Amino acid sequence: MSDSLERFTRQLAFIREIDKVKNIFRQTYLLDCRRRENDAEHSWHIAVMAVILAEYAPEGTDLSRVIRMVLIHDLVEIDAGDTYLFDEKANQDKAEREEAAARRIFGLLPDDTGAEVMALWREFEDRSTPEARFAALMDRFQPFLHNMATRGISWMEHGVALSQVLDRMRPVLEPFPLFWDYLNSQARRAVKEGWLKDA
Amino acid sequence: MSDSLERFTRQLAFIREIDKVKNIFRQTYLLDCRRRENDAEHSWHIAVMAVILAEYAPEGTDLSRVIRMVLIHDLVEIDAGDTYLFDEKANQDKAEREEAAARRIFGLLPDDTGAEVMALWREFEDRSTPEARFAALMDRFQPFLHNMATRGISWMEHGVALSQVLDRMRPVLEPFPLFWDYLNSQARRAVKEGWLKDA
Repeated sequence: MSDSLERFTRQLAFIREIDKVKNIFRQTYLLDCRRRENDAEHSWHIAVMAVILAEYAPEGTDLSRVIRMVLIHDLVEIDAGDTYLFDEKANQDKAEREEAAARRIFGLLPDDTGAEVMALWREFEDRSTPEARFAALMDRFQPFLHNMATRGISWMEHGVALSQVLDRMRPVLEPFPLFWDYLNSQARRAVKEGWLKDA
Repeated sequence: MSDSLERFTRQLAFIREIDKVKNIFRQTYLLDCRRRENDAEHSWHIAVMAVILAEYAPEGTDLSRVIRMVLIHDLVEIDAGDTYLFDEKANQDKAEREEAAARRIFGLLPDDTGAEVMALWREFEDRSTPEARFAALMDRFQPFLHNMATRGISWMEHGVALSQVLDRMRPVLEPFPLFWDYLNSQARRAVKEGWLKDA
C-alpha cells in the first residue's frame, strides 16, 4: 500500500472508531425529557454554542481552536465512559482512565495528526489557556441550561444540592460574570422550585 | 431588561431551540446498525472529519469556516425535516422549505449573529466557495462510509442503484480524486456484495 493510501486508511479507521461516541450516554436529558443525550450530541451542541457566544471570549481567543477542542474533548469516553460531574468517587481515577483512552484512540490516527489531537485534548484538560477556559465554560454551561429547561430532572435523580452546583461551577464560570450571575440567579430559582436541594 | 441581557436571552433561546436537531433522524445507520443517526450526531461527525482530513482541502481554505458551516448546515431540518439524498420528489421543494426554516430559526438570534449564520448556511447551500465544497465533501462522504461499514443496510432498504450513488456523488467528490477513486472502488465492491443494485 502506498504511504498516502496507508495514511488515508488510518484516517478512515479513526472516523469509524469515533462513531461509538454516539452511544456514550450522559446524565443530561434532552429538552423534551424523553431520553438522555449522548456525547456526540453534547459536543455538537457546545461547538455551536462556542460559535454563537464567541463575543464573550476574551479578546484574542482563537475560536477555531476552541471549537476543535470541544469537538474532540469527549472522545476518550469511548474507553473511559462518561463521569458524572457530581460523582466524587468516579472523578478520582478519571484522569488515569482517560489518559490511557487518549493514547489508544488518538493513536489510530497518522502520527502527526494524532499528536495534534492529543495536544488539543491535553490543553482542554489543563484549562490553562483562554481557549481551554472558554471551551470549559461551554462544556459546563450547556448541561446547566438543560437541567433548568427540564425542571431539574437529572439533578433530582441524583439528589444534587445547590452548594454542589456552585462549587463545581465556580472555577469555570466565575471568570465570566454574565454567565456566573445568570447561573447564580437561576440556581436559586431551582432551589425554590425544588429541583436542587437547599444545602 | 438591559440590551445586553436581552441579547443573552435571545442567544439562550436559540441554544434551547437547536436541541431539537437531536431528534431529526436520517436514513444513515450507526455503525452498530442498532438505530439511525440524527442530525446532531452527523454534524458533529463531519466537523471532526473536517479537522482530521484538513490536509485534503485546497491550499488557503479557511478550515474554521468549513467547521462552522458543517455545524449549522442541518439546523433548517428542525422545520423542514431530513430529505433523503435519493428521494427525487422530496428534493424538488427542499430549497423552499429550508429557506423558510432558516428565516425562522436563525431569526431567533440577535440580528447580527443571525445574519452571519444565515450567510454561512447560504454559502454551504450554494457550494461556490472552496470552504463550501470541502464541507459538502464531508457531508456526502460520511454517509457513504456508514453505508459501506453497515453492509449497505440503508441502500438496501431503499433499493438504491450504483448509478444513483455515482450520479449524486460525482459533483461533490470528483474534484477530490483520492475520495472519488476510493468511492468508485468501494461502490463496485458494494455491487458485488449485493448492497447496491447493478444499474
